[in-house]
Amino acid sequence: MENHEDCVFCKIVNGEIPSAKVYEDEFVYAFLDLSQVTKGHTLVIPKTHTKNIYETPAEVAKEFFARVPKIANAIKKTYQPIGMNLLNNNEPPADQSVFHLHMHLIPRYGEGDGYSSNWTVHEKDYTTDDLQKIAAEISNNVAE
Amino acid sequence: MENHEDCVFCKIVNGEIPSAKVYEDEFVYAFLDLSQVTKGHTLVIPKTHTKNIYETPAEVAKEFFARVPKIANAIKKTYQPIGMNLLNNNEPPADQSVFHLHMHLIPRYGEGDGYSSNWTVHEKDYTTDDLQKIAAEISNNVAE
Ligand SMILES: [Zn+2]
Ligand SMILES: [Zn+2]
Repeated sequence: MENHEDCVFCKIVNGEIPSAKVYEDEFVYAFLDLSQVTKGHTLVIPKTHTKNIYETPAEVAKEFFARVPKIANAIKKTYQPIGMNLLNNNEPPADQSVFHLHMHLIPRYGEGDGYSSNWTVHEKDYTTDDLQKIAAEISNNVAE
Repeated sequence: MENHEDCVFCKIVNGEIPSAKVYEDEFVYAFLDLSQVTKGHTLVIPKTHTKNIYETPAEVAKEFFARVPKIANAIKKTYQPIGMNLLNNNEPPADQSVFHLHMHLIPRYGEGDGYSSNWTVHEKDYTTDDLQKIAAEISNNVAE
């Protein structure tokens, strides 16, 4: 398991920095986000240090996300939220502030609960041909 | 593979409804979101029908998320976004509108690009003891 000396989340996994632990096993560690955007707001991280989604090997991604449904269900069972957003931010312009991959589990309790997303629909800006061209461009860049 | 008769995403997987396909293999299907919140906005879905994160078996979650890094990297390589948000919405109060698990991959190009999240920090509302209590409550509800 790779560890990065200055990584706050690696220090949480190692117990060098305290946390409010929700779950731990061989592959993942889950703990409350101090910001508690909503009550029960939890972060799930792989124990293996990986900066963001781009640098995450498939094997790490796999074991990491395999645990998310059971942690989401535990939050649901505990606080009966009426919805849940999962959010992973990569790079500072997308709000990443700790550079160790993490998934936010944000239980939702209704309008004004602390979280929402702004979403501008650009459906009318693209023709079917435009979309096929974009899809083909991305598709050509998917690594084997 | 379970299919739900009225599920739009199952119909996309089956080819009954056309889509701008980005990637496909045995387990997942990826295609452009028609809303194109930002250019290259892609949805990744498991081929197996599962309503949301709560109902997703670990084995499906695993294979599903294993493909996300390479699709994210393909979008990055194609359009050089300066960040990327991954978002999964569960239940209507959390903005889920199609009831087949999906992860939004939203490349980011800077302020005003079509996406942002509103995030209210409640750090001062909770003591360390409060957080330990919340974590313990959730932890007790994690299924084996
Ligand atoms: Zn780390
Ligand atoms: Zn479906």
